[in-house]
Amino acid sequence: MGRNAHETECRLKRLHFLALCCLSVIAACRGAMVWHSPCRMSLSGDYTPRAWWKNPTVPMTRFVARLAYDGTHFNGWQFQVKSRTVQLEVERAINSTLAACPDSDLLDKVCIRAVAAGRTDAGVHARGQVIHFDYPAVAAGRFTVQEFETKLNEGLVSDVRLWNVSHAPPPREKNLAVQGDWHAMYNSRSKLYTYRFSTRAVADPLHRNYCCAVPRGEALDLRKLAELTSIFEGKHDYQNFANRLQHKRRMSKRGEEFSTVRHVRSVELVSEAPEEYAIHVLLDGALQRMVRNMVGGLWAVARGDMSEAELRRALDGPLYAKGRSPIRAAPAHGLTLEWVYYDDF
Amino acid sequence: MGRNAHETECRLKRLHFLALCCLSVIAACRGAMVWHSPCRMSLSGDYTPRAWWKNPTVPMTRFVARLAYDGTHFNGWQFQVKSRTVQLEVERAINSTLAACPDSDLLDKVCIRAVAAGRTDAGVHARGQVIHFDYPAVAAGRFTVQEFETKLNEGLVSDVRLWNVSHAPPPREKNLAVQGDWHAMYNSRSKLYTYRFSTRAVADPLHRNYCCAVPRGEALDLRKLAELTSIFEGKHDYQNFANRLQHKRRMSKRGEEFSTVRHVRSVELVSEAPEEYAIHVLLDGALQRMVRNMVGGLWAVARGDMSEAELRRALDGPLYAKGRSPIRAAPAHGLTLEWVYYDDF
Repeated sequence: MGRNAHETECRLKRLHFLALCCLSVIAACRGAMVWHSPCRMSLSGDYTPRAWWKNPTVPMTRFVARLAYDGTHFNGWQFQVKSRTVQLEVERAINSTLAACPDSDLLDKVCIRAVAAGRTDAGVHARGQVIHFDYPAVAAGRFTVQEFETKLNEGLVSDVRLWNVSHAPPPREKNLAVQGDWHAMYNSRSKLYTYRFSTRAVADPLHRNYCCAVPRGEALDLRKLAELTSIFEGKHDYQNFANRLQHKRRMSKRGEEFSTVRHVRSVELVSEAPEEYAIHVLLDGALQRMVRNMVGGLWAVARGDMSEAELRRALDGPLYAKGRSPIRAAPAHGLTLEWVYYDDF
Repeated sequence: MGRNAHETECRLKRLHFLALCCLSVIAACRGAMVWHSPCRMSLSGDYTPRAWWKNPTVPMTRFVARLAYDGTHFNGWQFQVKSRTVQLEVERAINSTLAACPDSDLLDKVCIRAVAAGRTDAGVHARGQVIHFDYPAVAAGRFTVQEFETKLNEGLVSDVRLWNVSHAPPPREKNLAVQGDWHAMYNSRSKLYTYRFSTRAVADPLHRNYCCAVPRGEALDLRKLAELTSIFEGKHDYQNFANRLQHKRRMSKRGEEFSTVRHVRSVELVSEAPEEYAIHVLLDGALQRMVRNMVGGLWAVARGDMSEAELRRALDGPLYAKGRSPIRAAPAHGLTLEWVYYDDF
C-alpha cells in the first residue's frame, strides 16, 4: 500500500469517526437517546431524566397484571420518543397514582417502568398481554389490589385496560430468588396469537380495525390453507420470517449467536362467523413480525402466488438476501395477542 | 284594554315579526336552510343548490342496497350542514360515480339523494340498514350491479360499506304503481335493533365503541331484566320513551294527530359472551331514541333506581312534563340497527 493510499484511508477513518460523533450529539439533542436513561418520564409527559428508577432506599413490591389494548391508534407497545405507545400510557397511569400518596417525594425518588411479556408492533392488539412493575411498598400498602386496579384504570386512556392486577407470584423454589424475580417476559411459557381475516366481498365496517379484509379477487383456497398450517408446527428456524434480523444479531449481548429457532406448538384455522376466519398460533416465543409473516406466507400459497415447496424452502432454509424474500407480512390490524401463559399466573 | 297597552302590544308584535325575518335571513345566509333545497350537494362537498334532483327529462332507475356503518365518528344518518353524517358520505359516493359517465352533463342535470329505512342517531351503528336511490338509467346501463357495488364502495369512506346493491323489486300488484315506487322506509315490515352491554368490572377496550360498559357498582339484576323485557311486547303508547315529541307533533303534515303507539314484536335478553349481553328488539317502527330509552328503563329497574310499577306507568301512561321523566336513554354506542325486514328484499 502506498503512502498516499494509507493517508487517504486514515483521513476517511477520521471523517467517519467525526460523522459518528456529530450524529450522536444530534440524536442526544433531539431526545432520541433519552430512551437509554432508565427514568425519563415525568407526569406531564415530557421526557426529562430524573432519579434512578429503583432507588435502593425505597422498598418495592412487584405487581403483575393482564393488559388489553386496541392497537389501532398506538405505535406498538415499546416506548418511543414523540410517538404514542402503550408503554407510555401504562407507565403514565402507574406513576400518576403516586401523586396521591402522602409521602409526596416518592415521585422524585422513583419512576416506575412496566415490563411486558412481549412487544407488539404498531397496530397489533392485545387481550391477554401481561406486564410486571415494581411499586413502592409504602404506597401499595394504602389500598387493596382491587382498589389499585380501579385507580389505574381511572388514570388510563379508554383504549387500554388493566385487569387482574395482583402481587407477583412467590418464587417456587426457595433457594432460587426473592419475590421480585418474577418476570413477565422470562417466566412466560407460551403465547397465543390470533390473526383474524375476512373473505367477504364487502367487509363489515364494524370489524375493520380488528379483522383484515382480504381484497376481492384474491380468492383464497381455504382447504389448502387449513392443510398448510401443520408445516409450521414443531421446532423450526424462522430466520426468513423475521424482520430486522441483522440488527438483532448485532445486538445479541451474550456474545453467542442469536438463535432464530422457535418452537410453534400449534397453528389452527377456524371459522368464527360466515366468511370470517381466525388463525390461532400457539408458540413459546416469536421473532419480530413472525406471526404476520407466517400468515402472509400461508395466504400467498393459498392464493397461488407462491408454491408450497417455496414456503417449505423459506422455513428452515438459508437466509434470503434483503428484498429477495418471497414472504410478505399480513397487515398488523388483524393480529391480536390473545393470551400469555404462565405456570403460576 | 287601554290605547297605550294596545299600541305597546302592536309594537311588540312588529318587533317579533322583524326579529323572525332577521333570523331567517341570517339562517339562509349561513346555509342552515340549504337543507330544504332538494339538490344541494356538489362533489367537492360544498352545498350549492343546483338543478332539480329528479329532472323529468332524465329517465331514472331505482336501486336498493344494504348499508353497514360504524357510527362512532358520525353525527347520525341524516344530512346536516357542517357535520359528518352517513347520508352525506353515501350521497357523495353515489354522485361521484356519475363523473365517469361519458354523458358528462348528467352531473349538472341530476343530484342523487339516498333515502334510508330509518334515521339512526349520532353514535348508533348499523349492519343491515337499507337505502333506496334513483340513478340515471343511461349511466346504470354501463355496468352490472356487481360492478356498481364495487365502484360505490371504492368511493366510500372505510367506516361505511354498501352491499347487496340491486334493482328495486318490481311492484307486486300491477295496478298499484310503477317500479320507482318501492320505498326503503314505507315498504319496511319490521326492524331488528340490538343493544350490547357488558357487566365486566373492566371492559374490553376492543369492544369499547360497540358495547356499553355498565359502570362497576351499578350491579344489574339480570334475572329481573330478562323477566321485564316482556312488558314491552305488543302495541303500546311509547310517548314517554320518545325524544323531541312536541316537535314531531307540530311537524305532523297530514293534520291528524301524530301517533306514539308502536308495535314491538319481541324483546329478548341473550348472553353473547361471558358477562357480555345483548337485548334484541324487533319492532315495526321506532320513535326517536325509543330503543335506547327502553334499555335505559330496563337498566334503571334492574339496578333498583326505579320501581317496576313506575316503568309500567311510563308505558301507556300520560306524558311526563319536560325533565320530569324518570327514563334516561342508554348511551348511543351500544346500539346497532341489525336488520330491516321487507316482504320482497
